[in-house]
Amino acid sequence: MTEPPPVMVNAYDGSRADDLPPATRELIRRREHALGRAYRLFYDQPVSFTRAAGVHLYDAEGNAYLDAYNNVPSVGHCHPHVTQTVARQVATLNTHTRYLTDPVVSYAERLLATHDLAAAANAIFTCTGSEANDLALRIARHHTGAAGIVVTANAYHGVTAALAELSPSLGPNIPLAAHVRAVPAPAPGLDFTAAVTWAITDLRRHGHGFAAFLADSIFSSDGVRPDPAGYLAPVADAVHQAGGLYIADEVQAGFARTGTHMWGYQRHGLRPDIVTMGKPMGNGLPIAGLIARHDILDAFGRDVRYFNTFGGNPVSIAAAAAVLDILETDRLPVNAATTGAYLKDTIARLAAGTPLLGDVRGTGLYLGIDVNSPSTGEPSGRLASAIVNAMRERRVLISATGPHGSVLKIRPPLPFAPEHADQLGNVLADVLTAAGAAAGPAAW
Amino acid sequence: MTEPPPVMVNAYDGSRADDLPPATRELIRRREHALGRAYRLFYDQPVSFTRAAGVHLYDAEGNAYLDAYNNVPSVGHCHPHVTQTVARQVATLNTHTRYLTDPVVSYAERLLATHDLAAAANAIFTCTGSEANDLALRIARHHTGAAGIVVTANAYHGVTAALAELSPSLGPNIPLAAHVRAVPAPAPGLDFTAAVTWAITDLRRHGHGFAAFLADSIFSSDGVRPDPAGYLAPVADAVHQAGGLYIADEVQAGFARTGTHMWGYQRHGLRPDIVTMGKPMGNGLPIAGLIARHDILDAFGRDVRYFNTFGGNPVSIAAAAAVLDILETDRLPVNAATTGAYLKDTIARLAAGTPLLGDVRGTGLYLGIDVNSPSTGEPSGRLASAIVNAMRERRVLISATGPHGSVLKIRPPLPFAPEHADQLGNVLADVLTAAGAAAGPAAW
Repeated sequence: MTEPPPVMVNAYDGSRADDLPPATRELIRRREHALGRAYRLFYDQPVSFTRAAGVHLYDAEGNAYLDAYNNVPSVGHCHPHVTQTVARQVATLNTHTRYLTDPVVSYAERLLATHDLAAAANAIFTCTGSEANDLALRIARHHTGAAGIVVTANAYHGVTAALAELSPSLGPNIPLAAHVRAVPAPAPGLDFTAAVTWAITDLRRHGHGFAAFLADSIFSSDGVRPDPAGYLAPVADAVHQAGGLYIADEVQAGFARTGTHMWGYQRHGLRPDIVTMGKPMGNGLPIAGLIARHDILDAFGRDVRYFNTFGGNPVSIAAAAAVLDILETDRLPVNAATTGAYLKDTIARLAAGTPLLGDVRGTGLYLGIDVNSPSTGEPSGRLASAIVNAMRERRVLISATGPHGSVLKIRPPLPFAPEHADQLGNVLADVLTAAGAAAGPAAW
Repeated sequence: MTEPPPVMVNAYDGSRADDLPPATRELIRRREHALGRAYRLFYDQPVSFTRAAGVHLYDAEGNAYLDAYNNVPSVGHCHPHVTQTVARQVATLNTHTRYLTDPVVSYAERLLATHDLAAAANAIFTCTGSEANDLALRIARHHTGAAGIVVTANAYHGVTAALAELSPSLGPNIPLAAHVRAVPAPAPGLDFTAAVTWAITDLRRHGHGFAAFLADSIFSSDGVRPDPAGYLAPVADAVHQAGGLYIADEVQAGFARTGTHMWGYQRHGLRPDIVTMGKPMGNGLPIAGLIARHDILDAFGRDVRYFNTFGGNPVSIAAAAAVLDILETDRLPVNAATTGAYLKDTIARLAAGTPLLGDVRGTGLYLGIDVNSPSTGEPSGRLASAIVNAMRERRVLISATGPHGSVLKIRPPLPFAPEHADQLGNVLADVLTAAGAAAGPAAW
């Protein structure tokens, strides 16, 4: 029998609070008192950091943790080019886009030049990926006059009211809206294009019309589904034939994470109508945004202005420009491709030797590894969580994803080097050995 | 006859593009090409700045502009305590709230201590005021099981899909949702509490139920309506009696802008259920958030987790903590009260001498001044815009607001001193004299 889905993958649940140092327990108590229950911590034993650099986070005792999880500090934690640029800009000028400044225009030009849309495009800046996806929805509805949206079965696109109701991964307490259809995530043997086409037909039959297909180009929350490259191109054709927009959510896959391409949709050789971007854009400074076909945005901009007070502010833009600089100077796309391939091979070799690990998927520095119960062969979120926590105890940070929380998620900062891949591989091997040595699956 | 409402108050419309320097024209051309039509610039002749300090912005030629408009750099542009704190933190650690760090907890404790809710409260951090208001809506709907929201006639609460449809000030191209009722803005002679009560009854009669009353505590987009202090207390009573939540939107009035109180709702002696905060919170670093009654948030947090990747990140929290420090060390609330009163008197004296200016409203460093047509006595957005642009030519930055764009909006950084009030008064007097000397209203 398949396990029930976890409330939140890799969440601290307090069951091992007695194992924590008193200072940690006290900070957690204060945190719960001040921030309340909507906040969740990671890990059975939460981690606490005081500084970071490159691919490492350090705790108060100076212990280094290898970061194989965080994609926000994409060019490396506290990269000096980012931190110096931010320090200079915040001391010079920080206003908004209703005054005329060159950097936001120059950055938009640079960003647009990295994309492949079917037509000329414009950029709009927000602060978060949620704001970018929420705005993309508004634009798609304005353009099509329709409400219908197609997403995948365990999609996550953000936390605004409009996005929560189309993000099934947030769980059954947040019902999907009437105008939303969730199709199965891409998988071997599934005709994904046919599933999307069926959903579009159904939306129309219910009178919602069809506004857009919205997909994370690497399907992170669906368990990481990158291959085969190109499989999304016919989906885009079907979406366009139905008169809807293809919105590529690049919050996870974008900014060269996949190694071979700057944007996940480019691996699939398709041309989206809107592309949303977020997390790694400013290496931790809040900036996100979208680009969209000029003809679509022009009509939206005529009827509906958009202003985001902090969106495209000079400090966030300075950080974002520094990120583009570093991707180039530090040759991070090439590193993502080569180190990513090396890491994938390393893990695939481990997976071949244990029934705990199944399929190893991924591209560049974004990997997903299925964890299965050795007794049943079924996906196991419980065992994935045990591996994630055992690695955390050995100071390597990863997490899990997928509808059952049963897929290990490995997504390090892009300067991750082969020696870091070796370290991760060795620690994972240790953890798997310990699992094998333990008295059967019950010990997990 | 009343003028039609402006598409956007104080927007550049290109009609005077020929007057602009060639370099400015070229940057505007590139900007339109890259950012598109949804973006708007301020002023007939857009302004361009290269640095800022205190209450001044400087153009490339080194000319100082007196900033009497921007409330985001609330403790002063590029305040050294903020810039140094940010520079230090961005070089040390910038992660998220799923790791355990003390500063976000300590800041939440400090922030909560400034508020007066009816019960214990928790804080949640976002990046923008829009995200805070959108989340407040989600919480209110979860708590009440109802959809109905009451706002004011020209309210503005943000740009997400859910907020745009309850923000009438965005204009007729964005229809209000079926579950939204807009009541007239508070005004002398209006029984505002009765208007809100009527709207609640009407929402229920339509089957939407009543979730919340959502109001900017100073009613900025409705033309600035602070007085008399206390008039909102019976509204809160009526809202609570109807089983709904009172959401105080403090994005405009908060963080001591009103001088006498840290929060606008405190001037009215009421106890809200949720308070949303934004713009001045991090002096320009993107941070916003809400606090809400613990009993409300606890149920929401149990059923619906909330995570905002950049919300409450260490860099934004460091900036926000520095803002609280500076409010205290630089005695800015007292300054807002005293300089604000002095500025209001200065402008009231000018208003007494010209039919162009009518009622002068405001508290602390947030003022609204009615501009009327001398010939008809009606509110005039056209004349307000002419004053705003004439002051910009004399290097004093203000803007306009209200349903007709006919209310001058003055809202400077809080270190605004009496000599800055004098400068603003002198420039406004010049502008009014020039208007009087011109050949009748047509010259405007």
